[in-house]
Amino acid sequence: MLVEEKIKELGYELKEAPKPLASYIPATRTGNLVFTAGQIPMMDGKLVYEGKVGSNLTLDEGKKAAEICAVNCLNVIKSEIGNLDNIEKIIKVTVFVNSAEGFTDQPKVANGASDFLVNAFGETGKHVRSAVGTNELPVNVPVEVEMIVSVK
Amino acid sequence: MLVEEKIKELGYELKEAPKPLASYIPATRTGNLVFTAGQIPMMDGKLVYEGKVGSNLTLDEGKKAAEICAVNCLNVIKSEIGNLDNIEKIIKVTVFVNSAEGFTDQPKVANGASDFLVNAFGETGKHVRSAVGTNELPVNVPVEVEMIVSVK
Amino acid sequence: MLVEEKIKELGYELKEAPKPLASYIPATRTGNLVFTAGQIPMMDGKLVYEGKVGSNLTLDEGKKAAEICAVNCLNVIKSEIGNLDNIEKIIKVTVFVNSAEGFTDQPKVANGASDFLVNAFGETGKHVRSAVGTNELPVNVPVEVEMIVSVK
Repeated sequence: MLVEEKIKELGYELKEAPKPLASYIPATRTGNLVFTAGQIPMMDGKLVYEGKVGSNLTLDEGKKAAEICAVNCLNVIKSEIGNLDNIEKIIKVTVFVNSAEGFTDQPKVANGASDFLVNAFGETGKHVRSAVGTNELPVNVPVEVEMIVSVK
Repeated sequence: MLVEEKIKELGYELKEAPKPLASYIPATRTGNLVFTAGQIPMMDGKLVYEGKVGSNLTLDEGKKAAEICAVNCLNVIKSEIGNLDNIEKIIKVTVFVNSAEGFTDQPKVANGASDFLVNAFGETGKHVRSAVGTNELPVNVPVEVEMIVSVK
Repeated sequence: MLVEEKIKELGYELKEAPKPLASYIPATRTGNLVFTAGQIPMMDGKLVYEGKVGSNLTLDEGKKAAEICAVNCLNVIKSEIGNLDNIEKIIKVTVFVNSAEGFTDQPKVANGASDFLVNAFGETGKHVRSAVGTNELPVNVPVEVEMIVSVK
């Protein structure tokens, strides 16, 4: 549980992943790859941030939201594989940023997720990433993050 | 052909996938994974829905559009693997929703695809999913869906 | 180096991939799949195009931007696998198009990437593709492209 201890040091405790609300599931494995569903900035069943980055939310709030989404990705991966130390590599992170008109710092927002992953996992946490803007996201969240990891 | 019979019960008949119009192809396989191109709500060569969900299209129309996109994903997967009963698992579904300003029910739209897949495939159809908003989509479709499945 | 010669004929020289600016990396391999980070239309460290397709940029400029993004995907794949002739198949290309209101020709923009790949790789270059609109992209680029390829 080395990674989980590091995550605790970074200020988060992994929780039981929320029960799926629909026909989709939060994480699934095929071969040695685990894919997550798009995760939003919820903690303890509540949205932590709402709105668009660049208008009612600042860049720093957007980054924090991306970090929380990354934690939630790890939560659902843990539910699938049992122990995050079984992650071989974080492969791919996609960060959708609910962007106010003219906001073009999606990569800085996405760094909230990327930096957290590298802080938690070290080299194992280095991943490829796409950061893109969107005009709207589910329930008006500022960020949605999905992840692909490989397992040992 | 058990899945195809179920799909027929759900009101759809799988057709020969449309010929690729460009340098891209509708589905491709690598190892035991099949990836589809983004599919739009066309039936019999005609667009069934056009426009943005939340303005000129209702939520229910958006859901129906997502369902048709999912059917088209299955069409192109069938062209690739021959028989949908060879699907081991629906792995990942990404749903892009052409969203009017202020429309934040992308997950409900995406349920049109997700529910259909679970109705057709049962447990095999349960997948991870991302639903995101976009300000514009190709030829003004309300929904575009792409899929990854694993085959037996 | 057959593919690289073809790429040179098409007007591009592959360069050392830019050093990663953040916690993310430009390409990563898992099994025989290589994933790229989202690539933008930069050449020699400078943005070649900025703005939205359909307003300050024309369709042709958007296509050219998509082509440059595809070249950059190949650059980072080369850094990962050494020789582009080791590509077994271009699997998946995702093209995000920074779209002015009412611009719905994302597929034509994406053809800039797709046609280039097929010109460079022939059959090996045929891929599945999603083309979607976005309201904003990083540093105001018109196009962002990510790629998955399989290697021999």
